[in-house]
Amino acid sequence: MHLEDTLQALLRSYRSDGGINHLDGRNLPSQESVNQLAADCMHLLFPGYFEEAGLTQDQLAGHIRGLLDRVDRRLATEVTKCLRFTGIPSADAKAREFADTFLQQFPSLRQLIRTDVEAAYQGDPAARSIEEIILAYPCVLVISIQRLAHVLYHLGVPLLPRMLTEYAHERTGCDIHPGARLGSYFFIDHCTGVVIGETATVGSHVKLYQGVTLGAKSFELDAEGRPIKGVKRHPDIGDHVTIYAHATILGGDTHIGANSIIGSSVWLMKSVPDESAVYFKGDNLVIRSRRKKESLVERGAAPTHEHDWEI
Amino acid sequence: MHLEDTLQALLRSYRSDGGINHLDGRNLPSQESVNQLAADCMHLLFPGYFEEAGLTQDQLAGHIRGLLDRVDRRLATEVTKCLRFTGIPSADAKAREFADTFLQQFPSLRQLIRTDVEAAYQGDPAARSIEEIILAYPCVLVISIQRLAHVLYHLGVPLLPRMLTEYAHERTGCDIHPGARLGSYFFIDHCTGVVIGETATVGSHVKLYQGVTLGAKSFELDAEGRPIKGVKRHPDIGDHVTIYAHATILGGDTHIGANSIIGSSVWLMKSVPDESAVYFKGDNLVIRSRRKKESLVERGAAPTHEHDWEI
Amino acid sequence: MHLEDTLQALLRSYRSDGGINHLDGRNLPSQESVNQLAADCMHLLFPGYFEEAGLTQDQLAGHIRGLLDRVDRRLATEVTKCLRFTGIPSADAKAREFADTFLQQFPSLRQLIRTDVEAAYQGDPAARSIEEIILAYPCVLVISIQRLAHVLYHLGVPLLPRMLTEYAHERTGCDIHPGARLGSYFFIDHCTGVVIGETATVGSHVKLYQGVTLGAKSFELDAEGRPIKGVKRHPDIGDHVTIYAHATILGGDTHIGANSIIGSSVWLMKSVPDESAVYFKGDNLVIRSRRKKESLVERGAAPTHEHDWEI
Repeated sequence: MHLEDTLQALLRSYRSDGGINHLDGRNLPSQESVNQLAADCMHLLFPGYFEEAGLTQDQLAGHIRGLLDRVDRRLATEVTKCLRFTGIPSADAKAREFADTFLQQFPSLRQLIRTDVEAAYQGDPAARSIEEIILAYPCVLVISIQRLAHVLYHLGVPLLPRMLTEYAHERTGCDIHPGARLGSYFFIDHCTGVVIGETATVGSHVKLYQGVTLGAKSFELDAEGRPIKGVKRHPDIGDHVTIYAHATILGGDTHIGANSIIGSSVWLMKSVPDESAVYFKGDNLVIRSRRKKESLVERGAAPTHEHDWEI
Repeated sequence: MHLEDTLQALLRSYRSDGGINHLDGRNLPSQESVNQLAADCMHLLFPGYFEEAGLTQDQLAGHIRGLLDRVDRRLATEVTKCLRFTGIPSADAKAREFADTFLQQFPSLRQLIRTDVEAAYQGDPAARSIEEIILAYPCVLVISIQRLAHVLYHLGVPLLPRMLTEYAHERTGCDIHPGARLGSYFFIDHCTGVVIGETATVGSHVKLYQGVTLGAKSFELDAEGRPIKGVKRHPDIGDHVTIYAHATILGGDTHIGANSIIGSSVWLMKSVPDESAVYFKGDNLVIRSRRKKESLVERGAAPTHEHDWEI
Repeated sequence: MHLEDTLQALLRSYRSDGGINHLDGRNLPSQESVNQLAADCMHLLFPGYFEEAGLTQDQLAGHIRGLLDRVDRRLATEVTKCLRFTGIPSADAKAREFADTFLQQFPSLRQLIRTDVEAAYQGDPAARSIEEIILAYPCVLVISIQRLAHVLYHLGVPLLPRMLTEYAHERTGCDIHPGARLGSYFFIDHCTGVVIGETATVGSHVKLYQGVTLGAKSFELDAEGRPIKGVKRHPDIGDHVTIYAHATILGGDTHIGANSIIGSSVWLMKSVPDESAVYFKGDNLVIRSRRKKESLVERGAAPTHEHDWEI
């Protein structure tokens, strides 16, 4: 029988081709469970917004108690799996501790996320109400989930933080690594195609448009030709910076000074001072001070991609 | 007990940090319900395409009656929530009226959407059949849902139109604001990263590729530094225009003349006449007439990003 | 009664506006069923990774037998629909044969996909483990599903291959046509916005970043102004090539030589030899050999978009 042959061939393949099986090992976190965790956390952050039937003050404590209990148990389970995966001793107790620490941050995270919602409302003329932002702007999901994942990342939990941000990436097209440090009042309009790398830092009151990359230049390889992990590879963005659609900013020593504006489709691999305006004009990339309109800080000297790789 | 402490802290946070709670207020539209509404509307528009078991003429009337009834009730419920949210009097009766008006447009919307399907089939050499377009091209979902949302937008329904287009944005990566006016025979290939702003208009027989932005330049602020809402901010695209991947066209007074072609990765912030070809050649952005091949309308005078923001 | 009127108008519309109905015809493949097929195939490829409760060696054979049986039956059903759709005789028997052939390829596909996982781990300094790649990197889903769809494409199954890749496109923002030929050790970082056309070929050890397009120039039209189907329209990428974010490479006769590096946001419509480095430097697009650092192969001669369309 054909199917039995196919089955046996597949079982042989599981035995001979390791690396993409995960059998008899410690359980891995379940994608479905992580997705549910993310959705429940959004409910905890924004009570009354995502419930089918609305929510009254009377119901609130009971509803939140049930939800918090569910999140707490799920979190402990999934974090335990993650810690066992890396062989950390006393994974259960550690996971219990991490789950507590994580949930205790929710009130302060809510204050931070409230600034993001405010920034979106202020930043988009098309937005008619705060409610519209929370219900229909993808930046709310992707930034909130990253802020949660960032807490777990700093606790040193493996796998789970990245699975949380990938849940948000899948839904919004915006890929923010859990390691990135994001300031308050952060707004990303439209979201699709935005990539923010692990070691990037973003100041307060920063606004990004679709397709912006805060990425790495080429990275160093170790003696075996493997990329060295854990090096600062992504740029720092100052306060009150606006970066227009599809701009690409690369490099761990690239710093964009406060109050700067980066134009659409610009690629930039070196630092610019505070108050810079960077944009294409004719065949020049212009980098000039926003304060002194007449004098160009730099002209006809577009940054180069030459150092973007080892050659 | 830790969790009880966390609960109390969270409840305190709900009391002290308003703006991202929605409690004891009028119910907001439910995201899940809106998603189901969108899916049901696609079934009404394309009978026989999305049913698990297919659909015969005999079953048709009964099937559609059931579906229409469900859509009608859901629509009335969600529109009522939206109207109550903005405090409109007689929200129930108004919602009933809007639901009727909306559903009555389906036959004419189907005629329009049929032209989009035809345009996709004509526009992509990889397409083998009309059925393949409807089953596997994301433009069908995103354009159809925008056309539906546009009807509700014009009726003045808050929240719901944007939630519908965000449903399509999440699935396709293409963000078309409900306010945009789209002509017939509209094709967007691949869809990912396309952004079309609220006050954009798009002629007939227009074709866009992935990553195209029809966006705003900087927008005016009111006395309190908030963006002024309701101003014309996005470009007008003439009939029979093709815009290649990642081109960015910005500004409310930017008009792309009929029969023009805009090349990949071009950014353009001023109008071009009918029959223009706009593309990079060496270090010049060329804007020339497609009719007179030899004479360049403009050369070495790339549009500038200088006016892209207030500086 | 309003709703009855609307129903009758809709039924009239189904009778008069054909082309977007599918009634009394042969059943089309069901989107939901295809999505489940894709998810089940991922389980077959990566046992133990996506199960809620983990998987032990003891359970393996039973679990996989059940899963394989389900995939087999679903595949036969959906392929039969696809073949009947194009009027192929003995669709049932043919579908049975194709399902067998398809499933027999799984062991060798697993070997190939294992190289992709390895390439992702080697290629991203942020990746901490193979498990993180499989659980949280979208390239695993989109490349694996394309490799499966490619088998069905080559068997000549209509509709289904494209529905499978569209499932992955919807989840990852990366649109790889089932017809594209992909070498081993293929890595796409971040995935969002990547488009790879039907007739593209990609060598081994190729690495792409977000937003890369391997697309078509303008395509030829037949006597009736319709695009001619089945022509080679997309580029060939050599072994060990890296293409940075948002680069656009177009044309069926464009060949990127082995070991080349293409910089961010470059657009390229002509071939470059092995070992090329292509990037913007100031106002020049530089195409030079990576071996001879000092001598530019070409300077100030950016490729043109002029041939990107018929004008």
